[in-house]
Amino acid sequence: MNIDRYMIKDTGGKILRKLDPNETGGFKNKEEADTQMVSLKERLAELQDIFFAQKEHSLLIILQGMDSSGKDGTVKHVFSGINPQGFTVTSFKKPTLDESAHDFLWRVHKQTPAKGYISAFNRSHYEDVLVPRVHGSQDKDETKRRFRQIRHFEEMLTEENTIIIKLFLHISKGKQLEKIQERLQDPTKHWKFDVSDLEERKFWDDYQEAYEDIFKETATDNAPWYWIPANHRWFRNYLSLNIVVKTLEKLNLAYPKLNTPTPDISELISPRH
Amino acid sequence: MNIDRYMIKDTGGKILRKLDPNETGGFKNKEEADTQMVSLKERLAELQDIFFAQKEHSLLIILQGMDSSGKDGTVKHVFSGINPQGFTVTSFKKPTLDESAHDFLWRVHKQTPAKGYISAFNRSHYEDVLVPRVHGSQDKDETKRRFRQIRHFEEMLTEENTIIIKLFLHISKGKQLEKIQERLQDPTKHWKFDVSDLEERKFWDDYQEAYEDIFKETATDNAPWYWIPANHRWFRNYLSLNIVVKTLEKLNLAYPKLNTPTPDISELISPRH
Repeated sequence: MNIDRYMIKDTGGKILRKLDPNETGGFKNKEEADTQMVSLKERLAELQDIFFAQKEHSLLIILQGMDSSGKDGTVKHVFSGINPQGFTVTSFKKPTLDESAHDFLWRVHKQTPAKGYISAFNRSHYEDVLVPRVHGSQDKDETKRRFRQIRHFEEMLTEENTIIIKLFLHISKGKQLEKIQERLQDPTKHWKFDVSDLEERKFWDDYQEAYEDIFKETATDNAPWYWIPANHRWFRNYLSLNIVVKTLEKLNLAYPKLNTPTPDISELISPRH
Repeated sequence: MNIDRYMIKDTGGKILRKLDPNETGGFKNKEEADTQMVSLKERLAELQDIFFAQKEHSLLIILQGMDSSGKDGTVKHVFSGINPQGFTVTSFKKPTLDESAHDFLWRVHKQTPAKGYISAFNRSHYEDVLVPRVHGSQDKDETKRRFRQIRHFEEMLTEENTIIIKLFLHISKGKQLEKIQERLQDPTKHWKFDVSDLEERKFWDDYQEAYEDIFKETATDNAPWYWIPANHRWFRNYLSLNIVVKTLEKLNLAYPKLNTPTPDISELISPRH
């Protein structure tokens, strides 16, 4: 699968309406994609093992998308086979009092992965150019300034050996309604329902517009955005996993060699011991 | 006292050799300066109280200088009258394993002050363009890149309402030797002696040269460098305190007003209660 097709480049304007949330990358159904999921997950586990041993890079995966676009589900299905020792998920909620008393990148920078580690951000600093903007508490100048600050921040991280992947989970407005209904009807999903999601849904178009600007301003070569057709959960998971695996494969990972001459341990394993 | 005289601007090359570490700003002796120290400290305490109440800005004071230039002493004498509730000092030592596994700004960003708070950094991210550079583990490209990253980082902080003051405590090589001798002879100062200081002293010229580049690359309007003649402790303290007070005075601080109509509490204080 060629993941470059899903990289967002030179948008030069509106692109979201041209991207089909129902797309399945040529797969006819879930079963077809699932045959590859197992081997892809094994591959991810292998790569992560070397990545952790080598400790040369960090990997940061940023998940963004409208409410109900499947951020939690993506984390669960893409990373459930990973060694949790080298992996963290950070969910960024409404800022706490202490977080609000600092610049908006403060809480984000703290959670960036160390070398050898992989982190997934469930929401991120991109919320800070979405929510306040859509609700009118952030003017154009401030949004513009934050875009620049984000570019500089991500540039610094990548220069210091953090690989950044930004995934936009793209669902349709109709699909969101379906998912909200699911949450209301299925008792095991009630906990995911938040009445404020209905309020936010009224701002659908404003959020889409804000995302268009995010892509225009922050889709850089070093920290690319990918759009993930997310109406079909199985393809969303398949594609996200694929992007993570392909990104790691490009790094030419290798287990570090012994940095001393191989010691002679024959005596330790002689019958006398 | 006009503090602008000590602001480092448009260096365009070497400046340190032109700056006299023995300077005392026109004061004849310690006693003359001390008459103002008391009222300056009171003024700082007043300003800090409003600063803390208003919670609009943060203040970050970065202290740099050669070994024995008096960073600890400056913190002690300038800030000993301040309300510790709104003040923190962070000393940046050799990075820990966890710190080294992140970008060099990671540990620094974490310690930046919240709104209403004042922080002093005893050493800072500037060590990361000094020590590795002087000892040859950082090449020119990396130093240059870090200068840019530092400019961007400080730009972001100032745009998000952190006031930054950078103080370079300027001593002469002869004065450093004197202070090292003091540390060896005075039992109450033995704990401050570190044999590695003697090793580092051999790199005096390299450090001075590295500082020249720091001033050239990071003396910005928003995050200015001040040079502090530091051969005389009393003037070093007087000038540093002055710069902090003058910087706070420029902010037009004011206690926040009640944001509700003044409630009628006459009943609460009537004789019946």
